[in-house]
Amino acid sequence: MFTASKSSILDALRLVSQIVERRNTIPILQNVLIDLWGNSGKLTARVSDLDVEATVPFAATVDTDFRGFTIPAHMLMDIVKKLPDGADVRVEATDADLSSVTIKSGCSRFRLSVLSPHDFPSLEGAELPFSVEIPAAALERAITSVRFAISTEETRYYLNGIFFHPAPTGLKLVATDGHRLSKRFIPLDDVPQDMPGIIIPKKTVEAIAKHLPKEGSITLQVSDAKIRLLIGDMVLLSKLIDGTFPDYQRVIPNNEAFIEIEGKQLAAAIDRVSTVSTGNGRAVKMTFAGGSLKLQVSNPDAGNAEDEVAYEGDADLETGFNAKYVNDALANLSDSTIRMHLGETGSPAVLRADGDHVENVIVLMPMRV
Amino acid sequence: MFTASKSSILDALRLVSQIVERRNTIPILQNVLIDLWGNSGKLTARVSDLDVEATVPFAATVDTDFRGFTIPAHMLMDIVKKLPDGADVRVEATDADLSSVTIKSGCSRFRLSVLSPHDFPSLEGAELPFSVEIPAAALERAITSVRFAISTEETRYYLNGIFFHPAPTGLKLVATDGHRLSKRFIPLDDVPQDMPGIIIPKKTVEAIAKHLPKEGSITLQVSDAKIRLLIGDMVLLSKLIDGTFPDYQRVIPNNEAFIEIEGKQLAAAIDRVSTVSTGNGRAVKMTFAGGSLKLQVSNPDAGNAEDEVAYEGDADLETGFNAKYVNDALANLSDSTIRMHLGETGSPAVLRADGDHVENVIVLMPMRV
Repeated sequence: MFTASKSSILDALRLVSQIVERRNTIPILQNVLIDLWGNSGKLTARVSDLDVEATVPFAATVDTDFRGFTIPAHMLMDIVKKLPDGADVRVEATDADLSSVTIKSGCSRFRLSVLSPHDFPSLEGAELPFSVEIPAAALERAITSVRFAISTEETRYYLNGIFFHPAPTGLKLVATDGHRLSKRFIPLDDVPQDMPGIIIPKKTVEAIAKHLPKEGSITLQVSDAKIRLLIGDMVLLSKLIDGTFPDYQRVIPNNEAFIEIEGKQLAAAIDRVSTVSTGNGRAVKMTFAGGSLKLQVSNPDAGNAEDEVAYEGDADLETGFNAKYVNDALANLSDSTIRMHLGETGSPAVLRADGDHVENVIVLMPMRV
Repeated sequence: MFTASKSSILDALRLVSQIVERRNTIPILQNVLIDLWGNSGKLTARVSDLDVEATVPFAATVDTDFRGFTIPAHMLMDIVKKLPDGADVRVEATDADLSSVTIKSGCSRFRLSVLSPHDFPSLEGAELPFSVEIPAAALERAITSVRFAISTEETRYYLNGIFFHPAPTGLKLVATDGHRLSKRFIPLDDVPQDMPGIIIPKKTVEAIAKHLPKEGSITLQVSDAKIRLLIGDMVLLSKLIDGTFPDYQRVIPNNEAFIEIEGKQLAAAIDRVSTVSTGNGRAVKMTFAGGSLKLQVSNPDAGNAEDEVAYEGDADLETGFNAKYVNDALANLSDSTIRMHLGETGSPAVLRADGDHVENVIVLMPMRV
């Protein structure tokens, strides 16, 4: 039916690990659909989990007897990976009914069972009326700085993704799990201001982040139920989370005053004092006084730890945060000087990298210490 | 009480990960005992899990008020690891009762609870009458080639380690799990022939393998219940498995005839055909005929696979083996040509690297295919 190179097939299967579960109660969802790409002479590989589907074209020498089919995606990927580099892979129908295919390369022969392409699900349907072009690098940076804050609590399903919404001069991305919030701004011309705010599910976010090119632009097409990304030849189509993202602006305090501190030093000191905590959710007590921030962790079972980091600016305050959340935030800001906008004891802190866009902030909720 | 460098302390704690469980029902087993090393002016760090204990001396500036103490081993290691490279670490008693110690370095302070050194267990006791000196590199190679076959089945506790026993001109190491057996010979002068055969438990084997030096010799001291290894300054003392290792020589068939095959090619082909198996324990069918070995794997759920590898020698035989066990064996023989001594269908195969010592063999039990 067709011949293609090892590298061409592997490239076409690059979203298999993101989208296809190895064990699936619906057998066809373990499979990849191989079909003609219109009249281009190329083939496409499509995988789906009913919530997100990816279609990737690939170069092949296609015989006239070609018919579309589906075979186990991970198994095909594993087989092709194990062939010698540079190998050509020949795929043939084993019988006239196309109940299985034979994959040949060198001395190797594999027969894999086929499921009908007609049973393969499709998310295609209604039009996606809004369209935005986004520089891939900017989107990648924004997603990376925001996704750590996505909630994994299934009861708060409307927080299980990144909220994208239009702003007058660009797009805003926001994620929060109620304990921390991260917001990034991508400056763009021509964002349709009537585009709805949408929540892109975490799994789709991961697939996008992993496959964005380093250069060039990608196209985002949006309706209120679905999103389509055109990334080069690849088409990623996903359902959106059907819920209302909370009015996040309310939780970002508007503290004018800030202190400046070296992010790397602070992160290292927090890492050190956290050694005595056991388990998650441990608080670090922060005492800002006279230009020296004292960090303290106390664990009745193991002992306690303290450290100090210098800062610049006016602050005279005792507060506490989850040590892991502070370090997640620092890891997702740039390495430079960090501005911390502190309110009173017990109010959230706003963190921002010095020199970064004013809309790019991480908010941390305090912990009682 | 004392000051030591970061690197000196970390070096002394190098067996913590192998021996100390992070969570332990007996609290003192989570701890490391820091004590004087006789009158040497040095200190030692000792960890134990009641079955194996390691004692490592380390350089320190010791004050006259020093008293031995025990503190959580993993926590001490984590703290010291997170200090800047080159840092000096100062350890002081927090109070006169030595109920806790303070660890200081730069601006960092840690207070850790102490448990009494008198409660720390010791395996020292009766004499170990037999002694053997072994080149470290030869021991490392032998352990590495044998340990993959150690059984993890707790009901066959006498197979949960490596059997060491004296031979006229050296030491033999054997491990088996009933499905495969690996045997290595270390040529040595002066092995006491009345030394008992001993079974060294897997955990001790792993600790030894990880900490053998690249050069020089180590000393093995043995009784019928314990083993002590002197590896440089470090002393590793372990209980032995109290059981009888089976008469393994019975299961090694004495097939004169053999075929020769390239280990790397065979391993790659087995790896490819195994792709269609799901789960463990899958057989690969091997058909030797006319200089070409045909490999076949069949999985009713997924499909089947076949491949071919050339061999030299006379064999006309259909047999089957566990694909994973064949590849474990090939990975633990050298990369060169492999000799396979094959009996009849359904009898074990003996594998040996071409040119290797005649005693160094791996035996594989067949599977019905």
